[in-house]
Amino acid sequence: MEAPQQHLQGFITTFGVTQGFGAVTVILVTVWAGHYRGGFTWRSNPDIEFNWHPVLMTLGMIFLYANSIMVYRAFRNNRKRRLKLVHMLTHVVAFIVVIIGLVAVFDSHNLHNPPLPNLYSLHSWIGLSSVILFACQWVSGFITFFFPGLQSPLRAAYMPVHVFFGLAGFISAVTAALLGLTEKALWTLKEDYGKLPTEAIMINFIGALLVAFAGLVIYLVTEPRFKRQPLPEDEMLLTSGLE
Amino acid sequence: MEAPQQHLQGFITTFGVTQGFGAVTVILVTVWAGHYRGGFTWRSNPDIEFNWHPVLMTLGMIFLYANSIMVYRAFRNNRKRRLKLVHMLTHVVAFIVVIIGLVAVFDSHNLHNPPLPNLYSLHSWIGLSSVILFACQWVSGFITFFFPGLQSPLRAAYMPVHVFFGLAGFISAVTAALLGLTEKALWTLKEDYGKLPTEAIMINFIGALLVAFAGLVIYLVTEPRFKRQPLPEDEMLLTSGLE
Repeated sequence: MEAPQQHLQGFITTFGVTQGFGAVTVILVTVWAGHYRGGFTWRSNPDIEFNWHPVLMTLGMIFLYANSIMVYRAFRNNRKRRLKLVHMLTHVVAFIVVIIGLVAVFDSHNLHNPPLPNLYSLHSWIGLSSVILFACQWVSGFITFFFPGLQSPLRAAYMPVHVFFGLAGFISAVTAALLGLTEKALWTLKEDYGKLPTEAIMINFIGALLVAFAGLVIYLVTEPRFKRQPLPEDEMLLTSGLE
Repeated sequence: MEAPQQHLQGFITTFGVTQGFGAVTVILVTVWAGHYRGGFTWRSNPDIEFNWHPVLMTLGMIFLYANSIMVYRAFRNNRKRRLKLVHMLTHVVAFIVVIIGLVAVFDSHNLHNPPLPNLYSLHSWIGLSSVILFACQWVSGFITFFFPGLQSPLRAAYMPVHVFFGLAGFISAVTAALLGLTEKALWTLKEDYGKLPTEAIMINFIGALLVAFAGLVIYLVTEPRFKRQPLPEDEMLLTSGLE
């Protein structure tokens, strides 16, 4: 299949707006947890330790995850090899952040007096599935494209699967975040949610930003004319066996 | 750009499984509302009138919406003109179903004693946005492809926008459904949600089915090798001016 024409009109602006939305989302989640939900401690106060959960999951499973996906389009003039390395390492950082975010929520349930049950809600089912999918994608991506690094036809066959489940995991993560926001709004604000106090508006606004961010990321990484075209060096790397 | 090779291996099976998941989801939502949430009435009992909302929104915004999108791939050997008509009319039916589903939820809030506030939750914001997007898509699709029917280059330019926002609206609708399930679980089951009674498992299972259905639908309509190839008649219709 012939490669679509690369045509970058509007790319920089859209990419900038997307980064802005993503950054503002992470900042607002942090402000919400810090200001309305009591701030940040670790195990000394498990109820407040919880607050790391939304902040770190938004940072890891949404902002870093998205930036890792977008790296091929943002730095299109770099060698493929370097972009793959950045893609893989961003996911490593994201995964560490995510693990700490998961410890925070399990702690906040297990160290609560009396302990709260874990993993019963739709939020937890979809959220945990996204993290597991993310981990599987990392391992299979590493094996296929890094070490041992499979033969070209196998890489080519796996690539669309990797891309599909990469985007599916990202959309699931955003969905899980929206479910988490809804859970927290209903548990903490209860009937007051309907009166739309400042915190409720903030929660909904974070949700709306998440949707806008996700929509823009998906647009940026699926729009054919923004697709990175192989550089001459990519071919050389392939044929020289140095990749 | 050259058209990708049509290659239908696995299509029928995947399509059948997808339809099965979709149908079971609609049935389970109906059983849940009918059995656990008190059945179906209209304005005589607004609390129970509510139950039409999840059933009709799942039927209209998810099952019919998905089938309308998939019609080009399911009936690929039919003329484009007929498929467009089925696509448009399925959306009309879906929209009628959705309007009744929306009346049910507004009634259940407005006729409640005392009345409950409307449109405050993330579920309602994302859900209503999906319905508005759906309506805008219908109108712009109708104007572009039916009446008055724009010139070929304008149609071609609008097509990817129509496809992108079509899928975005579908994903938003599924997300709104998951948020709605979470809201209902928390309002009605409260702390019992954590003990995972039968109703909670049913709610989560409906959520998992929705995710699986959405994933399969998106796969079926984005996989390049399942794309419908133009028939000779499509060209004739274009050139003979009869389209």
